[in-house]
Amino acid sequence: MKPVNHIKIEKPLTVNELVRKMDSAGVLAAGRLGKSVNICEAMIKDKDCKVFLGLAGPLVPGGMREIIIDMIKNRWVDVVVTTGATLTHDLGEALGYRHYQGDKDADDAELHRKGFDRVYESYMPNKIYEGMEDFIAKHFERLKNKKSIREFLWELGRLTPKKSICRACYENKIPLFCPAISDSGIGLMIWGHLARNREVEVRAFEDLKEIMDIAWTSKKAGVIYFGGGVPKNYIQQAMQLTPKSASYGVQITMDRPEPGGSSGAELKEGISWGKMDPKARFVDLICDATIAMPIIYAALKERIK
Amino acid sequence: MKPVNHIKIEKPLTVNELVRKMDSAGVLAAGRLGKSVNICEAMIKDKDCKVFLGLAGPLVPGGMREIIIDMIKNRWVDVVVTTGATLTHDLGEALGYRHYQGDKDADDAELHRKGFDRVYESYMPNKIYEGMEDFIAKHFERLKNKKSIREFLWELGRLTPKKSICRACYENKIPLFCPAISDSGIGLMIWGHLARNREVEVRAFEDLKEIMDIAWTSKKAGVIYFGGGVPKNYIQQAMQLTPKSASYGVQITMDRPEPGGSSGAELKEGISWGKMDPKARFVDLICDATIAMPIIYAALKERIK
Amino acid sequence: MKPVNHIKIEKPLTVNELVRKMDSAGVLAAGRLGKSVNICEAMIKDKDCKVFLGLAGPLVPGGMREIIIDMIKNRWVDVVVTTGATLTHDLGEALGYRHYQGDKDADDAELHRKGFDRVYESYMPNKIYEGMEDFIAKHFERLKNKKSIREFLWELGRLTPKKSICRACYENKIPLFCPAISDSGIGLMIWGHLARNREVEVRAFEDLKEIMDIAWTSKKAGVIYFGGGVPKNYIQQAMQLTPKSASYGVQITMDRPEPGGSSGAELKEGISWGKMDPKARFVDLICDATIAMPIIYAALKERIK
Amino acid sequence: MKPVNHIKIEKPLTVNELVRKMDSAGVLAAGRLGKSVNICEAMIKDKDCKVFLGLAGPLVPGGMREIIIDMIKNRWVDVVVTTGATLTHDLGEALGYRHYQGDKDADDAELHRKGFDRVYESYMPNKIYEGMEDFIAKHFERLKNKKSIREFLWELGRLTPKKSICRACYENKIPLFCPAISDSGIGLMIWGHLARNREVEVRAFEDLKEIMDIAWTSKKAGVIYFGGGVPKNYIQQAMQLTPKSASYGVQITMDRPEPGGSSGAELKEGISWGKMDPKARFVDLICDATIAMPIIYAALKERIK
Repeated sequence: MKPVNHIKIEKPLTVNELVRKMDSAGVLAAGRLGKSVNICEAMIKDKDCKVFLGLAGPLVPGGMREIIIDMIKNRWVDVVVTTGATLTHDLGEALGYRHYQGDKDADDAELHRKGFDRVYESYMPNKIYEGMEDFIAKHFERLKNKKSIREFLWELGRLTPKKSICRACYENKIPLFCPAISDSGIGLMIWGHLARNREVEVRAFEDLKEIMDIAWTSKKAGVIYFGGGVPKNYIQQAMQLTPKSASYGVQITMDRPEPGGSSGAELKEGISWGKMDPKARFVDLICDATIAMPIIYAALKERIK
Repeated sequence: MKPVNHIKIEKPLTVNELVRKMDSAGVLAAGRLGKSVNICEAMIKDKDCKVFLGLAGPLVPGGMREIIIDMIKNRWVDVVVTTGATLTHDLGEALGYRHYQGDKDADDAELHRKGFDRVYESYMPNKIYEGMEDFIAKHFERLKNKKSIREFLWELGRLTPKKSICRACYENKIPLFCPAISDSGIGLMIWGHLARNREVEVRAFEDLKEIMDIAWTSKKAGVIYFGGGVPKNYIQQAMQLTPKSASYGVQITMDRPEPGGSSGAELKEGISWGKMDPKARFVDLICDATIAMPIIYAALKERIK
Repeated sequence: MKPVNHIKIEKPLTVNELVRKMDSAGVLAAGRLGKSVNICEAMIKDKDCKVFLGLAGPLVPGGMREIIIDMIKNRWVDVVVTTGATLTHDLGEALGYRHYQGDKDADDAELHRKGFDRVYESYMPNKIYEGMEDFIAKHFERLKNKKSIREFLWELGRLTPKKSICRACYENKIPLFCPAISDSGIGLMIWGHLARNREVEVRAFEDLKEIMDIAWTSKKAGVIYFGGGVPKNYIQQAMQLTPKSASYGVQITMDRPEPGGSSGAELKEGISWGKMDPKARFVDLICDATIAMPIIYAALKERIK
Repeated sequence: MKPVNHIKIEKPLTVNELVRKMDSAGVLAAGRLGKSVNICEAMIKDKDCKVFLGLAGPLVPGGMREIIIDMIKNRWVDVVVTTGATLTHDLGEALGYRHYQGDKDADDAELHRKGFDRVYESYMPNKIYEGMEDFIAKHFERLKNKKSIREFLWELGRLTPKKSICRACYENKIPLFCPAISDSGIGLMIWGHLARNREVEVRAFEDLKEIMDIAWTSKKAGVIYFGGGVPKNYIQQAMQLTPKSASYGVQITMDRPEPGGSSGAELKEGISWGKMDPKARFVDLICDATIAMPIIYAALKERIK
């Protein structure tokens, strides 16, 4: 048995140096954060491994957008699955809007009058919808008859004027999936056209062919989840199709196992389903993504050239 | 100010009698549970109000299936939005399978060998997939060219051999939405056909027309959420289109506000978005659905003839 | 394996009837609530079993005071351990004050000006301190030289003018422990006298003799925890001294295991310490006490004559 | 309004550099962590401010011991309040024992046979009790008639053979309080002597004089809480006596507000009680202490010479 090594800090440390000490402590959230970095590093460096990244929660209103874009540009991940909200927030920023530092105890009726939509303590200007409406209207013809949501999103990325998660996926040919795209501001914009009797042919099940094929043909697979929801579950579902189940797993969320939902389920539960290899290296960390993601990214950046 | 009235129990009480006492205590989870029943009662009895029910989490593996079916049959709700997992578990039971009482600390590798998929401490027999595969194969032709997911689900309900959530919605003409249907066992079954180059035309955005139309034409709207995820968010999105935002709201979940995601966001946050009327009657309750749902249903059953 | 039996509610049910159905569902929070009642019933009916009740959290501001008093009067429990806050709130009510239904989002500075101390959404009138000050001053001579905190509390109970938790313990000769009594409003009142150079001889460690003796001489022991903190830990510590460790255990809390503290630790962790018998009947339930306690009490009331 | 500045990481960063970026993002847990460091820095640098540190939870089994000792040695804090468990774990390590990296899913009955006490995923060797028993027996005469728990603990620190939290407090003349000292392994060791009819005169209320005096005579006060429980509440209680209530506050815990207990209560609740100045700089962060404490310490180490 390894002892718990107490973290001792005597001089300025880089993020990775601190993470190494957390790893050496080896227990509780600190130890799990250390292990998370180790496992992310291993799966990214493993040439045979396809890395599936699931993103849920307010990552863009929470300041994580550049890190996500850089993870894609670094080609650390091979597949991205996310929520409609993340793509909406991302598109909003790509169109020149910002999110703002707010107050969770603000008067919501007053925010509504002033045109700010609250996301806990981050504010999204409601005007973002006007910009998106114009953008979608301008490009509607190019979007409406994409066959799959992934094709729809790559086209969206291609059309996006500035740096974005969506555009980074398009440019780097990283498949981007969003099964519940209709449940989002982007969905609302598309609805504006449907309501005028325009047809939008994008199919609900079509993407399954592509993500299942990636899973099926992978030599190994690794999963990284920030948050749960559809992104995690959709990747987990694909893991059932990988020849050897997932070989690596990192789950970071504030959701808990005991309500029994997929979002908070421990990764080991996936072993019973054949989603996770019993011999896989995996770790569950209960921590807010806005703390864990920058630390993990900064530490990996020191480790991976 | 009203005093906290201590709950005093001197003789056997019906569930509703106990809930009345909790309401009279008036604070913390007990008070909020009392208020939840009051608000559900009010929105169900309000003839002008369309009630939107969002369901997420392991409700079928958790024993809530009959209650959900009865809420639909009673026509207490006008719209149901749920997850693919719930519909998969529901279909499995309609095909004659059961979920089993298990152990959250079981050996997952052994469960895998024995063919049981663990959902926290509930087990789903893996054979359920065989039954579903046959069922979907048998009816594929009837399902593949439905235009919207709602139409697909009503058809599924029509075809379902026994009582089910899906069938209850079909029979009672309650619109049933599931934006992320592809993220589920049902999705997997459909994928089996896509993989053999069959076409499935169901459209991703199509349902928005229908749910938005219901919202748009409602005189009043009420929302009841057990769990968050896509079901809650999709309904909240529709609330932006109701003429007066939601007039009633009950949210029951184990998710918390502070990670900033939609699932745990307090209902009042919706005021800033124009999803919730500032004058609405609403309550957030942090409680497991498997405790809250039977209590609320039993209490309502005593109150609503 | 037992199937998950879906809860079906067709007519008004008593609380115990609903709990039986939850027990028959058998999983997740509902199943655990059912099991909690079964285990409480078993330990209370077991004539050889000493029942240790740990109480933490805002049970009096939350409306649970009468239930606690009745559990003591019924002699369902043999030992009570609680926090200084609970005894302070209890004494306040015994002196004629009430707690009030408030708003968690109230303006705290305004509440301060108006003389209300907020406990989440329950308000305690600050005047309670005046009444307590008079009460303690009047009886200081009788309290100051009690040797143990338990003796101090029984004396407090004896002096209490009306029904109270403290008085119920005194009258029924149920030992009441509160290791951190100095950390409370009662502590503050005593400090007022210490500050005037009066001596208060009550000893910090003295109670250990009594609680350990009860544990040591018990044939069997059962533990019921509402909340964690010192009350749980103090009882758990005593369980190390019981001849056979605890034979029954029910833990109900909103605290979680993963931060690693005693409050949220699962009962099975106690097996490693020799606090819990590996063959014990025990259950952990993550649920707010203000919901679980009335349900459990009401169900037990139907079962225990 | 300030925009949410996305965290961008292009080169190795020191911990403080990353924290600055989190502060600039400004929202959610990352923003709160940034603010936590700012407020800790401000209160430590404010010469007029007495800093009260509350420590609860498994900080020693979690690898935080050296950081806590260094915070004391740096004289960043003026008062420390903690749990009996922390002092027990600390004394165990000072006597040469270690905690070990374990598995939360281990077989607890087997751990019991092997002599390891589990603290989530950290193991404490049961032999620690033998060493403590000898140590306390050897020094019992010097400990038994200390008048207050603080005096008892300083004496314990004086006697401790190696570096420890307790000894660091003694050597640096930092008052160390532990109201529930009897609820701990140290308490158990003292009980061993009480059981042999030895007298231990340490008084339960006595410390209140000292902590209240420090609060009363402070020009300003700041509070830092890792975890809740008695340590937080005992300091909060003292804040009622400071002339101006607390001027700074940082609370880091995994406990939540909604159960209504003191542990998870937001700091702003203290304003209603007169514990927190409405104009104070304060922040609540929901994060595991084993992640937050090393980051905060490392960042402060870069900022404070």
